[in-house]
Amino acid sequence: MFDNSLAQQYRLEEAARQPPIRFTFFWPAVDRWEGRDFDQRGGHRMTGRNLDLDAALARQLRADSIRCSTAAGSGHPTSSLSAADLLAVLLAGHLRYDWAKPKDLANDHLIFSKGHASPLNYALFRAAGAITDDELMTFRKLGSRLEGHPTPVLPWIDVATGSLGQGLPIAVGVALAGKRVLAAPYHVWTLTGDSELAEGSIWEGLDHAGHERLSNFTAIFDVNRLGQRGPTELEWDLDAYAARVKAFGCDPIVIDGHDLAAIDEAFARARNGERPTVIVAKTVKGRGVSFLEDEEGWHGKALDGQQAKQALAELGEVPSRTFQTLKPDPWQAPKRPVPRKPEWKTYSEPLATRKAYGEALAALGAARSDVVVLDAEVSNSTHAEDFKQTAADRFFEMYIAEQQMVAAAVGMQVVGLVPFASTFAAFMTRAFDFVRMAAISRASIRLCGSHAGVSIGEDGPSQMALEDLAMMRAVHGSTVLYPCDANQTARLVGLMVEREGISYLRTTREKTPILYTDRLDEFRVGGSRIVRGGQLGDAVAVITAGITVHEAIKAVDQLKATIKVRVIDAYSVKPIDAVALVEAVRATGGRLCVVEDHWAEGGLGDAVLAALAETGVAGEIVGFRHLAVRAMPGSGKPAELLEAAGISAKHIADAVKELAGCGRRR
Amino acid sequence: MFDNSLAQQYRLEEAARQPPIRFTFFWPAVDRWEGRDFDQRGGHRMTGRNLDLDAALARQLRADSIRCSTAAGSGHPTSSLSAADLLAVLLAGHLRYDWAKPKDLANDHLIFSKGHASPLNYALFRAAGAITDDELMTFRKLGSRLEGHPTPVLPWIDVATGSLGQGLPIAVGVALAGKRVLAAPYHVWTLTGDSELAEGSIWEGLDHAGHERLSNFTAIFDVNRLGQRGPTELEWDLDAYAARVKAFGCDPIVIDGHDLAAIDEAFARARNGERPTVIVAKTVKGRGVSFLEDEEGWHGKALDGQQAKQALAELGEVPSRTFQTLKPDPWQAPKRPVPRKPEWKTYSEPLATRKAYGEALAALGAARSDVVVLDAEVSNSTHAEDFKQTAADRFFEMYIAEQQMVAAAVGMQVVGLVPFASTFAAFMTRAFDFVRMAAISRASIRLCGSHAGVSIGEDGPSQMALEDLAMMRAVHGSTVLYPCDANQTARLVGLMVEREGISYLRTTREKTPILYTDRLDEFRVGGSRIVRGGQLGDAVAVITAGITVHEAIKAVDQLKATIKVRVIDAYSVKPIDAVALVEAVRATGGRLCVVEDHWAEGGLGDAVLAALAETGVAGEIVGFRHLAVRAMPGSGKPAELLEAAGISAKHIADAVKELAGCGRRR
Repeated sequence: MFDNSLAQQYRLEEAARQPPIRFTFFWPAVDRWEGRDFDQRGGHRMTGRNLDLDAALARQLRADSIRCSTAAGSGHPTSSLSAADLLAVLLAGHLRYDWAKPKDLANDHLIFSKGHASPLNYALFRAAGAITDDELMTFRKLGSRLEGHPTPVLPWIDVATGSLGQGLPIAVGVALAGKRVLAAPYHVWTLTGDSELAEGSIWEGLDHAGHERLSNFTAIFDVNRLGQRGPTELEWDLDAYAARVKAFGCDPIVIDGHDLAAIDEAFARARNGERPTVIVAKTVKGRGVSFLEDEEGWHGKALDGQQAKQALAELGEVPSRTFQTLKPDPWQAPKRPVPRKPEWKTYSEPLATRKAYGEALAALGAARSDVVVLDAEVSNSTHAEDFKQTAADRFFEMYIAEQQMVAAAVGMQVVGLVPFASTFAAFMTRAFDFVRMAAISRASIRLCGSHAGVSIGEDGPSQMALEDLAMMRAVHGSTVLYPCDANQTARLVGLMVEREGISYLRTTREKTPILYTDRLDEFRVGGSRIVRGGQLGDAVAVITAGITVHEAIKAVDQLKATIKVRVIDAYSVKPIDAVALVEAVRATGGRLCVVEDHWAEGGLGDAVLAALAETGVAGEIVGFRHLAVRAMPGSGKPAELLEAAGISAKHIADAVKELAGCGRRR
Repeated sequence: MFDNSLAQQYRLEEAARQPPIRFTFFWPAVDRWEGRDFDQRGGHRMTGRNLDLDAALARQLRADSIRCSTAAGSGHPTSSLSAADLLAVLLAGHLRYDWAKPKDLANDHLIFSKGHASPLNYALFRAAGAITDDELMTFRKLGSRLEGHPTPVLPWIDVATGSLGQGLPIAVGVALAGKRVLAAPYHVWTLTGDSELAEGSIWEGLDHAGHERLSNFTAIFDVNRLGQRGPTELEWDLDAYAARVKAFGCDPIVIDGHDLAAIDEAFARARNGERPTVIVAKTVKGRGVSFLEDEEGWHGKALDGQQAKQALAELGEVPSRTFQTLKPDPWQAPKRPVPRKPEWKTYSEPLATRKAYGEALAALGAARSDVVVLDAEVSNSTHAEDFKQTAADRFFEMYIAEQQMVAAAVGMQVVGLVPFASTFAAFMTRAFDFVRMAAISRASIRLCGSHAGVSIGEDGPSQMALEDLAMMRAVHGSTVLYPCDANQTARLVGLMVEREGISYLRTTREKTPILYTDRLDEFRVGGSRIVRGGQLGDAVAVITAGITVHEAIKAVDQLKATIKVRVIDAYSVKPIDAVALVEAVRATGGRLCVVEDHWAEGGLGDAVLAALAETGVAGEIVGFRHLAVRAMPGSGKPAELLEAAGISAKHIADAVKELAGCGRRR
């Protein structure tokens, strides 16, 4: 099976005799051994476990992976078979998990980064007694908890996977929380396919695991050589994988992934390591079934009935039973201080909402011990760094790795923490796939994107978020908030703490005047505020949020009461305050102007129209102007760029004048 | 300056005497030397160049970086100073570039992946004589071509940078095109900051450079130790960087980035290497100005007038002149065959639009030699693999690295190729930041996302794109197309070839019936087709695209002419056919039903409402129903999931009945 082990062994022995030759790469730091060789060299196995049970379990996992996918008529049996031995040994001898208490903080975590190996994941749950064989056979059917790829509708699944390259970085987050916040005894295991090792996010994850020396983290690389459409880039070049792992600060352990003793040793060693470990396992796709082994063309294909019968016959005697799992050692999570009501600052002088965000985090840090803050190396710009003033030990520097930042936030909320993660709103786009998946994970995370819109000024379009509202609105169940002053920002951060799902706060680079000094409790998710006008006789309603609220107010001032204008601060972009919008339509006779520092597509303008259409009052619109960014901006002063984009006070005043003159068409 | 070189030297010498110690990592494969040491050891320098000019140029680059940022009052002088020596030697002795002919295919390419070092980039253009000193001093001002971060409004800039971690992967694309398609003589140089090395996309890029053995590619790591808010993760651990580079298949060359001779040697060696090279340069942020050198707190800050004066005084005698650049050797691009009209297949039997996409690519491959196709390891699902039948040498397997895929496409269009890049539409979200930046790069790339919506069936929500229309609509200048049959797909692919900017095609997993057999030339960007009804007496208009067009037709059939329905195939989601929408409103008295296999936010529904509002006819809407996906889907059969999501024929028929009963409200 392991055809390059001898050559490698030779190289290591040679290396021991010779001075190192420059320009030739060999990697003495990589600890390579297989259980059998180890025994032959007179070593002793660390665990001393009898592995007959593991072998039986592996046969059951294989059989069940085939059975459930054949019953479904689709799925990934061959990707399951390659990892069956690895997972059998993990379940039988190493995973510490109380299946009756999936929320027990002492439990190990097992995340299938290769989510398509869901047949194996579910077969494992069945072997653990968590689900019945009957339920196993509902795989991929409408209404089943056993979806094509794992999701947390099953209580033993931490997070949804299936977008490759995400499970490992999320597992890093779970390990980070266990080590740095909870001091919990759990170990985090993640099973990773070799195809997904081409994703940069994997290396962001290992980089962080190494940097943080996460000894409670183990990734298992299931190197079965075959991707969806053919060989992987590195095929069975285990040396290359090991060198990468090592270079990224983790300890590679290279094994034959079908040698139960080697697997057993590797897991024992991984659990007791002082650094994060990666088990680089050479495996065979379809292992155990002659006509599937290392064959192309079988990815993501279920066997038909006849093929399944033949495969099961080849597997020999297959048990159909529950296997014992080690329970975690009894552990009591240290008592946390009772959360206090955060002492929000109140502001009277102009302040950037990004700064207010930082100060709100600081207030939260003092009040609650479950809040954690992550930032992608721009915490002095997003002002997330202020959190360090009250809770430095719960601040996580994620460096410039936005995908890993969001993944870590998702991982941390798995174990009950309340994460806030921030970067420039423009760079939040880097993590869109992770945010999308976080929604499928039913995760509760709070994101903050700073430096929104053209109003950032000189830095130019690469730093301007002009699509973040569209992106975040299109996340299932999301909450999208966009404050215009510092007091409001603090209050919205307070609402985000309690909010389930994905919530997003959009902040501004520039200082903005203080609008709200009265009753700060008047903000709510789904709310809005009327900041000018508000009478039935208003001629036009300007609906806006964030920086352009102040432009709208300036426009009203410029108009000098020649036209009565209602200015609505729609700080809750999603859910939007449909009632206030309907009232605005009714009050103004249907004359609306939406203003936003965002592309015209997918942002506040679309949200307003959708709400009016949904509530059945779109037909009452008589005049509609949408001021948004429509041409590619360049550099300039903030005011110049607001002007150039057509979203400044002057443009708003012009639009209002035009709207006020609109007659009813019919 | 280079305080660990002795220790390193010692380690290498030690290593040469000792047998390798297992478990300790040293990297004899990394070729480390500095020019001076090299000379002392009796070696000869490869280039024999006198470096006095380079030193003078470096001083000018430093002075100009300071001058222009001080004049602007913002910018990144210290990040420019760390790389000034590297870029001076590159410009004076290695870059082959005809500044008068920036489109010359023989020119080298220089991409500042650390786009914030734009002062250095522009100072270099000034030194090359491409821009005047007067223009240099317009840096960051409104209307200037010299934006805060580089964009291709300057003809010598290939692509916009400023979102870190993107320039390098794009440079890989330029190199790939040069080596594998054009056989061009150019070398691609990219300057990378050390902070951005935390981005996974960097490692996707180096992985591909290594895998493709891009000997025409050189990355320069400007390791100045300091990021925006403090030390980088690895600071000056050059060994760690070199090990990573090596492990990812590129050749590291470790140097002191302020030793001109070492730099000169390294560039000569990089150009003549047989593999991609990475120059790992130890540098000092703010180098050359005593009060800036290796100091925190100076990132992204311009010097004030007084500070600038002091800094310039420290730099000593600074030239203010144009420096000669090597021109590329005369080279004639091989003549390409004249493009032919592609022979699109025509279809009469049901076929998935994704399959039609693949076959359209195959037709393009035969007809045009400038079309290239990239796919992220799912080409047997997206059917991009069909392109190999006619142009295998222009198919690029990017493995599961969507960011690198889009980056490579952007790089390839820099040198005139016409790239199509595909993956599952859900995974296109992985590359959103790259697509966003591609728009700022004024790039013309064509993306195809397959497996859109719940209609994919059993694989579950992780594989279902339900936000891709929102994402792609919110890209500046984008074109968003969503065909419903195979003939239409072929025609839209044909339109994409000619289309500037970012265009996106959304395809479907399932086979769909053929609707269009008549005049295939009737499709256009910004168009739509009426597939049922079309008379003035239509009671209701159903506006839809893609898979749900067929559901709408089934709904019409179910209604058995009890209600006259107009079904509009809005295959051009952006730009949308506003004229057809207005006609539909007028014809039906304002009764509209929009149906889409997408979340309710940001997709076709929002696009329709925005167009109606923009054209001033929103007020004529009497009834509006928006059937879209609103609850998290699970697994199931495609038809079951369309039904469960409320977007099936039955739901459409119900909505039509309800709408037909709507009276005018006013």
